[in-house]
Amino acid sequence: GYAKVDHHRGLRNGYPEVIYCEDKTTDEIKGIVEKMMERNQNILATRADEEVYEALKELTDDLEYYERARIVVIQKEEIELSESKILVMTGGTSDLEVAEEAAITAEVMGNTVERAYDVGVAGIHRLLAQKDKMAEANVIITVAGMEGALASVVSGLTDKPIVAVPTSVGYGANFDGLAALLAMLNSCASGLGVVNIDNGFGAAYLADSIINQIEAARE
Amino acid sequence: GYAKVDHHRGLRNGYPEVIYCEDKTTDEIKGIVEKMMERNQNILATRADEEVYEALKELTDDLEYYERARIVVIQKEEIELSESKILVMTGGTSDLEVAEEAAITAEVMGNTVERAYDVGVAGIHRLLAQKDKMAEANVIITVAGMEGALASVVSGLTDKPIVAVPTSVGYGANFDGLAALLAMLNSCASGLGVVNIDNGFGAAYLADSIINQIEAARE
Amino acid sequence: GYAKVDHHRGLRNGYPEVIYCEDKTTDEIKGIVEKMMERNQNILATRADEEVYEALKELTDDLEYYERARIVVIQKEEIELSESKILVMTGGTSDLEVAEEAAITAEVMGNTVERAYDVGVAGIHRLLAQKDKMAEANVIITVAGMEGALASVVSGLTDKPIVAVPTSVGYGANFDGLAALLAMLNSCASGLGVVNIDNGFGAAYLADSIINQIEAARE
Amino acid sequence: GYAKVDHHRGLRNGYPEVIYCEDKTTDEIKGIVEKMMERNQNILATRADEEVYEALKELTDDLEYYERARIVVIQKEEIELSESKILVMTGGTSDLEVAEEAAITAEVMGNTVERAYDVGVAGIHRLLAQKDKMAEANVIITVAGMEGALASVVSGLTDKPIVAVPTSVGYGANFDGLAALLAMLNSCASGLGVVNIDNGFGAAYLADSIINQIEAARE
Amino acid sequence: GYAKVDHHRGLRNGYPEVIYCEDKTTDEIKGIVEKMMERNQNILATRADEEVYEALKELTDDLEYYERARIVVIQKEEIELSESKILVMTGGTSDLEVAEEAAITAEVMGNTVERAYDVGVAGIHRLLAQKDKMAEANVIITVAGMEGALASVVSGLTDKPIVAVPTSVGYGANFDGLAALLAMLNSCASGLGVVNIDNGFGAAYLADSIINQIEAARE
Amino acid sequence: GYAKVDHHRGLRNGYPEVIYCEDKTTDEIKGIVEKMMERNQNILATRADEEVYEALKELTDDLEYYERARIVVIQKEEIELSESKILVMTGGTSDLEVAEEAAITAEVMGNTVERAYDVGVAGIHRLLAQKDKMAEANVIITVAGMEGALASVVSGLTDKPIVAVPTSVGYGANFDGLAALLAMLNSCASGLGVVNIDNGFGAAYLADSIINQIEAARE
Amino acid sequence: GYAKVDHHRGLRNGYPEVIYCEDKTTDEIKGIVEKMMERNQNILATRADEEVYEALKELTDDLEYYERARIVVIQKEEIELSESKILVMTGGTSDLEVAEEAAITAEVMGNTVERAYDVGVAGIHRLLAQKDKMAEANVIITVAGMEGALASVVSGLTDKPIVAVPTSVGYGANFDGLAALLAMLNSCASGLGVVNIDNGFGAAYLADSIINQIEAARE
Amino acid sequence: GYAKVDHHRGLRNGYPEVIYCEDKTTDEIKGIVEKMMERNQNILATRADEEVYEALKELTDDLEYYERARIVVIQKEEIELSESKILVMTGGTSDLEVAEEAAITAEVMGNTVERAYDVGVAGIHRLLAQKDKMAEANVIITVAGMEGALASVVSGLTDKPIVAVPTSVGYGANFDGLAALLAMLNSCASGLGVVNIDNGFGAAYLADSIINQIEAARE
Ligand SMILES: Nc1ncnc2c1ncn2[C@@H]1O[C@H](COP(=O)(O)O)[C@@H](O)[C@H]1O
Ligand SMILES: Nc1ncnc2c1ncn2[C@@H]1O[C@H](COP(=O)(O)O)[C@@H](O)[C@H]1O
Ligand SMILES: Nc1ncnc2c1ncn2[C@@H]1O[C@H](COP(=O)(O)O)[C@@H](O)[C@H]1O
Ligand SMILES: Nc1ncnc2c1ncn2[C@@H]1O[C@H](COP(=O)(O)O)[C@@H](O)[C@H]1O
Ligand SMILES: [Mg+2]
Ligand SMILES: [Mg+2]
Ligand SMILES: [Mg+2]
Ligand SMILES: [Mg+2]
Ligand SMILES: [Mg+2]
Ligand SMILES: [Mg+2]
Ligand SMILES: [Mg+2]
Ligand SMILES: [Mg+2]
Repeated sequence: GYAKVDHHRGLRNGYPEVIYCEDKTTDEIKGIVEKMMERNQNILATRADEEVYEALKELTDDLEYYERARIVVIQKEEIELSESKILVMTGGTSDLEVAEEAAITAEVMGNTVERAYDVGVAGIHRLLAQKDKMAEANVIITVAGMEGALASVVSGLTDKPIVAVPTSVGYGANFDGLAALLAMLNSCASGLGVVNIDNGFGAAYLADSIINQIEAARE
Repeated sequence: GYAKVDHHRGLRNGYPEVIYCEDKTTDEIKGIVEKMMERNQNILATRADEEVYEALKELTDDLEYYERARIVVIQKEEIELSESKILVMTGGTSDLEVAEEAAITAEVMGNTVERAYDVGVAGIHRLLAQKDKMAEANVIITVAGMEGALASVVSGLTDKPIVAVPTSVGYGANFDGLAALLAMLNSCASGLGVVNIDNGFGAAYLADSIINQIEAARE
Repeated sequence: GYAKVDHHRGLRNGYPEVIYCEDKTTDEIKGIVEKMMERNQNILATRADEEVYEALKELTDDLEYYERARIVVIQKEEIELSESKILVMTGGTSDLEVAEEAAITAEVMGNTVERAYDVGVAGIHRLLAQKDKMAEANVIITVAGMEGALASVVSGLTDKPIVAVPTSVGYGANFDGLAALLAMLNSCASGLGVVNIDNGFGAAYLADSIINQIEAARE
Repeated sequence: GYAKVDHHRGLRNGYPEVIYCEDKTTDEIKGIVEKMMERNQNILATRADEEVYEALKELTDDLEYYERARIVVIQKEEIELSESKILVMTGGTSDLEVAEEAAITAEVMGNTVERAYDVGVAGIHRLLAQKDKMAEANVIITVAGMEGALASVVSGLTDKPIVAVPTSVGYGANFDGLAALLAMLNSCASGLGVVNIDNGFGAAYLADSIINQIEAARE
Repeated sequence: GYAKVDHHRGLRNGYPEVIYCEDKTTDEIKGIVEKMMERNQNILATRADEEVYEALKELTDDLEYYERARIVVIQKEEIELSESKILVMTGGTSDLEVAEEAAITAEVMGNTVERAYDVGVAGIHRLLAQKDKMAEANVIITVAGMEGALASVVSGLTDKPIVAVPTSVGYGANFDGLAALLAMLNSCASGLGVVNIDNGFGAAYLADSIINQIEAARE
Repeated sequence: GYAKVDHHRGLRNGYPEVIYCEDKTTDEIKGIVEKMMERNQNILATRADEEVYEALKELTDDLEYYERARIVVIQKEEIELSESKILVMTGGTSDLEVAEEAAITAEVMGNTVERAYDVGVAGIHRLLAQKDKMAEANVIITVAGMEGALASVVSGLTDKPIVAVPTSVGYGANFDGLAALLAMLNSCASGLGVVNIDNGFGAAYLADSIINQIEAARE
Repeated sequence: GYAKVDHHRGLRNGYPEVIYCEDKTTDEIKGIVEKMMERNQNILATRADEEVYEALKELTDDLEYYERARIVVIQKEEIELSESKILVMTGGTSDLEVAEEAAITAEVMGNTVERAYDVGVAGIHRLLAQKDKMAEANVIITVAGMEGALASVVSGLTDKPIVAVPTSVGYGANFDGLAALLAMLNSCASGLGVVNIDNGFGAAYLADSIINQIEAARE
Repeated sequence: GYAKVDHHRGLRNGYPEVIYCEDKTTDEIKGIVEKMMERNQNILATRADEEVYEALKELTDDLEYYERARIVVIQKEEIELSESKILVMTGGTSDLEVAEEAAITAEVMGNTVERAYDVGVAGIHRLLAQKDKMAEANVIITVAGMEGALASVVSGLTDKPIVAVPTSVGYGANFDGLAALLAMLNSCASGLGVVNIDNGFGAAYLADSIINQIEAARE
């Protein structure tokens, strides 16, 4: 086989194995997933389109397709949800795809997830109305394109750790997400950790690693 | 003489002639100002340092140096202030230099200017507290560096025309003001006209041209 | 519903609600418009293609499709036109799409709009011939791609506020509108407010906010 | 006063007020610090040079200068250290300045800090030798310039949350830290939150906000 | 004929003539190959898709299509393999296409090639397990996208000459391979020669020129 | 000696040898010029500061320093001026340095040079007033910074070959001349050949090579 | 009509009107050409594909399609060829499209054109073999992609004026022609005027304007 | 101590330990060198200025300062020179500093080094005259700034492995070496391994690693 599947990760019960589908053929994906299924862990396939979903359906019935998130989940083990909470916020409706990639990933990794979508700074009252949700969260993931101001404003409103995800939503001098990326890296309000443009998965992964520390401390 | 002074501008009473000092020697500046003084108009010298000020003091006593704004004003005619108002806002204290370039320029061009400095989005309550000043203004100039989120948030709070000035305040992935520039160009809240990085003068000039139209309509 | 429709805007009579269609599915657009129609305001759908138009036609007959501008307008309230005028100018014929996005948007927002298209600096006599139109305008929107020199030259000919829209027309070292964008930001003639590349809507929005101030002063 | 000091932050006992000295004159810094001292909190002055230190020494004796970190600390309240640990790692000795900015900031904010410096990937045995320190840490801050590979390799070795700080150490196609920044944003090993180039302070701030959540869970 | 075929190269027995298919029509490719075939040398067609393969099959039966490598080889002369070895390593499975372009090219040029794929730094034990292969190689080609850390880590583990190939695998702030390219150019571990993004052919060509020198020395 | 002086050029009578002083020590320059002087040709030293001038004065009295142009000329042979004319135009006074580098270089190479400085598009009447000078020129060199619109407008007014020189005059989003460079490369009016930012010498060299062809045709 | 056709150009007998087809619909092109045909001048349609050709064939029989050049020529007046010569050179066969755009444009504008294609620096003997053609030319157009070294090397071999056209041929760190563009702007051999990436038309236009001056001098 | 000295390298007799002085204080350098001297190996200090040299002179008499190369060598063991040869070539005299960094480094590492300086493509006969030196070399290091065409042309003339070093020599659109870097990465002639801008040391290191393989094969 050409791909060396990494058996290191997945320490917690229910923790999924992950496959990133973007640069792979449907056949390759099917092959890798089949091999993964031998270990009976949960499987998370990101950037999966309809066609990948149909192909994986041939392997098992224990799967669900989250279209908005472009994620297929094959669930073999039960997922126990954390006491700690992750809040996922978006600036606009166009950021949903990335936000759902983050939210579903986080949930499959065993985290309790809250959502607050379309609360961007163009109408700041919608954002201020989320204060309670922010107060209850242990980690906040902010997803925003265009000028990405959401991340700074949220950070100004809270001292929770924030994972900032720039999206490629926008056009022109947006340069496919560069504007939002630079904005988040230069935020005047500290406490942000930035991930790659459109990287909902990576945001959830980082948030999950923080929640892991918190949950461990609870015990 | 090597410089062709442009006598076209300056239609309103008291309207100044302008000299941009950055790429000129003190001698050149002195020469140009001396020539300008023959027409007995007000004179605005931007990007002027201490040395330029000392040199121009030798030409006349009717001058004032605005150190923070790096501006020398030679006033020969009275300046009648507009009924309309320009509000100049900054995100932080480091944006003051550019903001004052805008504010003094606007005042010398005959505009009534309000200031609301250091009201950036890291502490949004400071910004929300400026709602009355915003309501009274006819044009708002927002001056911000780093991620430049101020412009978007202000624009979300008002429907007044906004002149957005990115500043080069920041470091690293700020790329000398590029982050703030891109943010302002990609604002999710419309109604912003963006000028060059650190261009307080140009912001005031545009704001003034808007005020001119409003004042004309009042009559 | 995933989208929080913002009921804040639209203060003036006839003022439209706006939907940006680019990153949305036809179904999403239809859903949002349906919800908007409950409030009986005018609706402006930008970046709308033929398919969107066909879908919205199923909701109402009070709609018009401006193909060149890629705009659908659903008119429920009468639009009262402003006394003040906006002049929209383009450098070439390829800039028409963006210019019409600006022009139609401005009209739907209640502004009187003049057009002067294909008057770029390659044949400067065509531009100089527009002096009367410029004199009559209260705000000028210049739309230009390639090197974007139109904005500077127009600004040199007038003291009216100018909204400069760079377009992505061009190729090679144009970098999808970057050349025109930088040119407009660096104009040697002050008085320009720049918006994002191809952002005809944003230009109209800013021009409208200026006209609002002028109209208010007339009263 | 031109600067609006923000009294919101600083919830925990001993939590410092912060001043960023880079774009301010020594006089301004002294003025701001004097005002801060009225509230008797600890004060952290970053990017402070010798001159700033000398000026602040005139205000109080309760101060220490961390030259390597370019930080002045004025300590008025006792700092209680966290049970949780932050590990700060650097790729080379040239990254020390940024690393110490992070380490001292974290300590003044009440965190227990471990250091593992000069353990870059050019000699990977030095890095592998840090496995115990990594296992004991709750958050890891990786500081690296040049190609910034340290962050990826560390992330591959642990599932702890990682705050990745690119530094401007390098030359040529490094473009002042851009190479390391892009590397960290594109890490093949997830779990990294990236901050601005050379932003040791921001890294500590984010790490601290994570530790806060962990400490709260301990109780 | 429009193309001047260069008869200079190909000094060694079996050394192939090369055609790069990307910007050429299938007809042009067929024409050029036909002309090449007159000289009875081996022929290597890179960036060849299915269609090119089908077209060339009409010219001869002595051809093989390496789909993964996108290479067609027409073999007329026997290829004698070198005693020296080239090791081709990749970070992930998505880098295979470029790696195979390098491997097949090197083989057709008469080099003994070893492969070690999917041994990226996210799971460093997989990489450390390749030490023997590295020790046996005379030249190592490292192929990696995303943050390209593989090249640095390999270089830190060996003093063999390394040809580093950044790939365009990744997204967002990867900027089509720029992140990996910059990483490799700025490697903290010396001994890397970098080629263009996705340039598997060029990597093999450089490795081959080194092997040529080694083989010559053996005699 | 480390520098191989190139004796190929300089075909016409009086044609100078050229030395570019920027990256050389005064001693190196003196050494090279001394060697050049053995051939008794004219010598043109560009980017020469006061110190270089003083050093070369020790070698000969037949030299002149053009301060504005930063050029030292050592004249040994008579310079016969061309019948054809080069017109050098600038947008502003800050472009003079580059313009004079072009003008003096062209003159020393035997060309008749006209100047029209500070005729930028901000006041287009000043530019239109140059129509006669343009009509008389055989080649036009346009020198402009900021948005570089001068080149396009001049090209729209004439069909003469134009050498366009972007200058680094400006700030912010000018990016040290990039804005003007891109503008000139993307001119909507064809007929421009662009040289490097601030490269007055190169512009003159190209103009001279054109004049050479014209002069040859006259005979 | 939306397009203002410019009747200024076309001074010489046979000089064509030009239409750039890229951003226009076939209907628009047909409409503009029809209008142009009323003046009975020759017409040059660049960036024209098969479909445009078919559409224009409906208007007239006096047309020819140069597929390689993507040009349609409608010839109404005889074209008198110049005594002076333009030599068009390319680095590789992939540059042909751009080279032919230049060559056909130049011919239709009345210039005698020589071609020397596929003479790039990878096999420098092919280039050195063109010395006679270079000696006979009055202007040389060099067309090259990838690293664009052809322009520099040709310039080192001749003192003729050179129009340098970078092409977008290449991949990876070529950045769509940027590499070749920068190379030509920074040539160590002076005497180059650079045009936009892939701008064969503009190169011909500039070369023609130079030939015009030479031809005029001949009389 | 803050710096972990790596004792892995230096397998061959005489192989030096290396210290990069750029970002270190003279005291730090002295400290590190003192520690290195305990092992009695040769020491190579790169990017060393006069001051560093003076400081190291206090530690030992067995040192030499290569000013042009900015290198200090402390020689404790004899250096046995390789039978294989490295040829270092430069485009211009301004590239000497980087070239000498490469040459001296290579020599101290035990390689026989030939030099061919100032043989750039502007006068290609100077380059062609180096054919014999190229034929005798086993590895060629080409050092060039500006448009970096030297690397391509040399590669077209030989099949030896080439290490290409772009330098930051140039100005304007050179962007501190970016132009040459891109040129070398996009060379139409394969067989180049590119190192970072101005990285003479890295070039020598790579060349040395190749020579090591060749020397080993000789035995
Ligand atoms: N949407 C995503 N974006 C970025 N990285 C991802 C994504 N999904 C998965 N990954 C990462 O890619 C790895 C799997 O890559 P692969 O072996 O190519 O399938 C996972 O372990 C994750 O670290
Ligand atoms: N601070 C400034 N930033 C940008 N443009 C300025 C500034 N100050 C003056 N200007 C412009 O520069 C022109 C004067 O330029 P100059 O003739 O070079 O002194 C004025 O008419 C303004 O348009
Ligand atoms: N100001 C300048 N800008 C760009 N190139 C120049 C300049 N002055 C001279 N040159 C070029 O540099 C060459 C001399 O370089 P050098 O041998 O380093 O003195 C001349 O032949 C010109 O081609
Ligand atoms: N291939 C081309 N590349 C760049 N500019 C062109 C090209 N063909 C025509 N042009 C220019 O475009 C103008 C015609 O533009 P348009 O009026 O839009 O058809 C001509 O006058 C030329 O200046
Ligand atoms: Mg916060
Ligand atoms: Mg608003
Ligand atoms: Mg104006
Ligand atoms: Mg990890
Ligand atoms: Mg190594
Ligand atoms: Mg022209
Ligand atoms: Mg030449
Ligand atoms: Mg070669």
